[in-house]
Amino acid sequence: MTTQLSVDLGARSYPIVVGVGLLSDSARFSPFIAGRQVCIVTNETIAPLYLDALRRTLSNYQIDACVLPDGEEHKTLTTYSRVMDHLMAQRHNRSTTLIALGGGVIGDITGFVAATYQRGVALIQVPTTLLALVDSSVGGKTAVNHPHGKNMIGAFYQPRLVVADLDTLRSLPAREYLAGIAEIIKYGVIRDVKFFNWLETNVESLLRRDPVALDHAVLTSCAIKAEIVAGDEREDGARAILNFGHTFGHAIETLTRYEYLHGESVAIGMVMAADLSMRIDLLSGFDGRRIKALIAAFGLPVAPPGNITTAAMRASMGMDKKVIDGRLRLVLTRSLGDALVTDRFEPPALEATLAAHGRLCED
Amino acid sequence: MTTQLSVDLGARSYPIVVGVGLLSDSARFSPFIAGRQVCIVTNETIAPLYLDALRRTLSNYQIDACVLPDGEEHKTLTTYSRVMDHLMAQRHNRSTTLIALGGGVIGDITGFVAATYQRGVALIQVPTTLLALVDSSVGGKTAVNHPHGKNMIGAFYQPRLVVADLDTLRSLPAREYLAGIAEIIKYGVIRDVKFFNWLETNVESLLRRDPVALDHAVLTSCAIKAEIVAGDEREDGARAILNFGHTFGHAIETLTRYEYLHGESVAIGMVMAADLSMRIDLLSGFDGRRIKALIAAFGLPVAPPGNITTAAMRASMGMDKKVIDGRLRLVLTRSLGDALVTDRFEPPALEATLAAHGRLCED
Repeated sequence: MTTQLSVDLGARSYPIVVGVGLLSDSARFSPFIAGRQVCIVTNETIAPLYLDALRRTLSNYQIDACVLPDGEEHKTLTTYSRVMDHLMAQRHNRSTTLIALGGGVIGDITGFVAATYQRGVALIQVPTTLLALVDSSVGGKTAVNHPHGKNMIGAFYQPRLVVADLDTLRSLPAREYLAGIAEIIKYGVIRDVKFFNWLETNVESLLRRDPVALDHAVLTSCAIKAEIVAGDEREDGARAILNFGHTFGHAIETLTRYEYLHGESVAIGMVMAADLSMRIDLLSGFDGRRIKALIAAFGLPVAPPGNITTAAMRASMGMDKKVIDGRLRLVLTRSLGDALVTDRFEPPALEATLAAHGRLCED
Repeated sequence: MTTQLSVDLGARSYPIVVGVGLLSDSARFSPFIAGRQVCIVTNETIAPLYLDALRRTLSNYQIDACVLPDGEEHKTLTTYSRVMDHLMAQRHNRSTTLIALGGGVIGDITGFVAATYQRGVALIQVPTTLLALVDSSVGGKTAVNHPHGKNMIGAFYQPRLVVADLDTLRSLPAREYLAGIAEIIKYGVIRDVKFFNWLETNVESLLRRDPVALDHAVLTSCAIKAEIVAGDEREDGARAILNFGHTFGHAIETLTRYEYLHGESVAIGMVMAADLSMRIDLLSGFDGRRIKALIAAFGLPVAPPGNITTAAMRASMGMDKKVIDGRLRLVLTRSLGDALVTDRFEPPALEATLAAHGRLCED
């Protein structure tokens, strides 16, 4: 069973292929490889699992691999520079193709390298985590972190193809799998109340990684993201709602030095955004509690760690990209399936959210 | 006297303003500044000359400056990273505007920073060298060098505005001024035989920096470049002819570790490209010798340094971006005003060009 979605971006449109056994299907890849050279960028965790298989699938090409250390702490300009060194040493030219084989970190770094190596070369995303599959591999956002903020250095750069092989999710550790579920919940909250309802009734089958449930969740998520991205490629407007939970979440990631996975931080951030939405009477308490309950049902965290102070959160959020000329803009939600970007909230309401910790989304 | 040209790139179109006294004219800048924040990126040579003036002109904004060391050897990822650190430390947000005040190195670094800081912020180019004015500030190519090759890391990113204040050319050292003349000659060779003829009869007035001659030379050059760029924003085809002399020139720059200025290397590279064009009977000996003679008339170098071997040139050119799957493509010329990109030359002809040194363009 293979399904294909399309991200509609004019000359930069590209397909997302979702299914099983895709990594060994060379015909999926060939039409999207630019020249004779291919470089697979992956990490030390993923390489032993899938690198050899993908190499065999693409054995007709002049292929090499760049294996990076695993972890968000390596999503830096230093690692970026190391991939550049590899490409130069292996004499990759402008018609080379980079394949990002891994999770969000690999996708983001490889995407930024592809955007800027010789001013741009072909890119194929092969996400191997649920989070990357439903989030970072779709939409063309690439970046590395700066010591003072996440994703501060990067580019908008579209892949030619996304190959989402659901087989790779079987080996995923439970914690990473659940981090991906957090982003899936996000799509329901911001855009699709029916999908949110479906998630509420399918917690158990998703926890079991039931293939039919998973396929539906992944396809629906990718379709929602593709539709939002197609309407706003460079995040000037509508696309910003994809950041629901992310401004709070990024601050938590920065302040805990990435002790939380991205999806876990976003889970907490979504509860905080729901809490603030309730405090300013945008969202009903009933719906706010449903958001928190669904996140908790998957065993995801629903409050920031107790040692993070309000002051630290405020300072960290002040550096976020969503600040326009000094006013903090946040993605909040009016009701399930209906998010908006706004700076219309009073500072005391935000302060209360930052201080609430375990009491988030309680009336 | 102020003239305005337009680079037509649809939603990314922008004006090039050429004239005198522009640095003190705030109305030229204001419509193109995105928000309240402005960062001027410049270098230690230019800062004492023009930084205070530009600061005063833009005193209505929250303005700071990032002053870099001067020289092509600083066009690196390390310097790029330093500008990123400055922007983060000064808390520049997504609606900031970067102004590149300086020559090609400043324009290229600042452009690449603007392309990638928070995935892209507003950029204004204020070129202060003749080379930057007629070349790098128009067209949206941004980059830094890699130890193994020039401009290997970068992006295509258009400025919102180019302000070419001819006053800044008065203080330019003779060597840098002539390096700019090399690129001006290039436009005649690749696209406009009438302009080439005009240059032949105006050597003396251009050497005197006669304002009327200079204005004509700058406007014609920018117009040719703008027209070529508009037809091929991402250098997939026609735009490649702008690289006339550059493949040879980049190799010389790399091998001499930037002892030659970019324009000087391109001057030598153009003579080599003309020589190869003659050897394969594409270009007449008469026109080839005119190209060499015009370059020499300005006192620009017309042969690579004697200590550069054929083998070193070949190796260095093999890493050039113009190589597609192992075949070296070069910009050659059929006649004055008519350049083309081709890989149809026999290796021995190229070898002879690389070995010719002082005998280039002789029959």
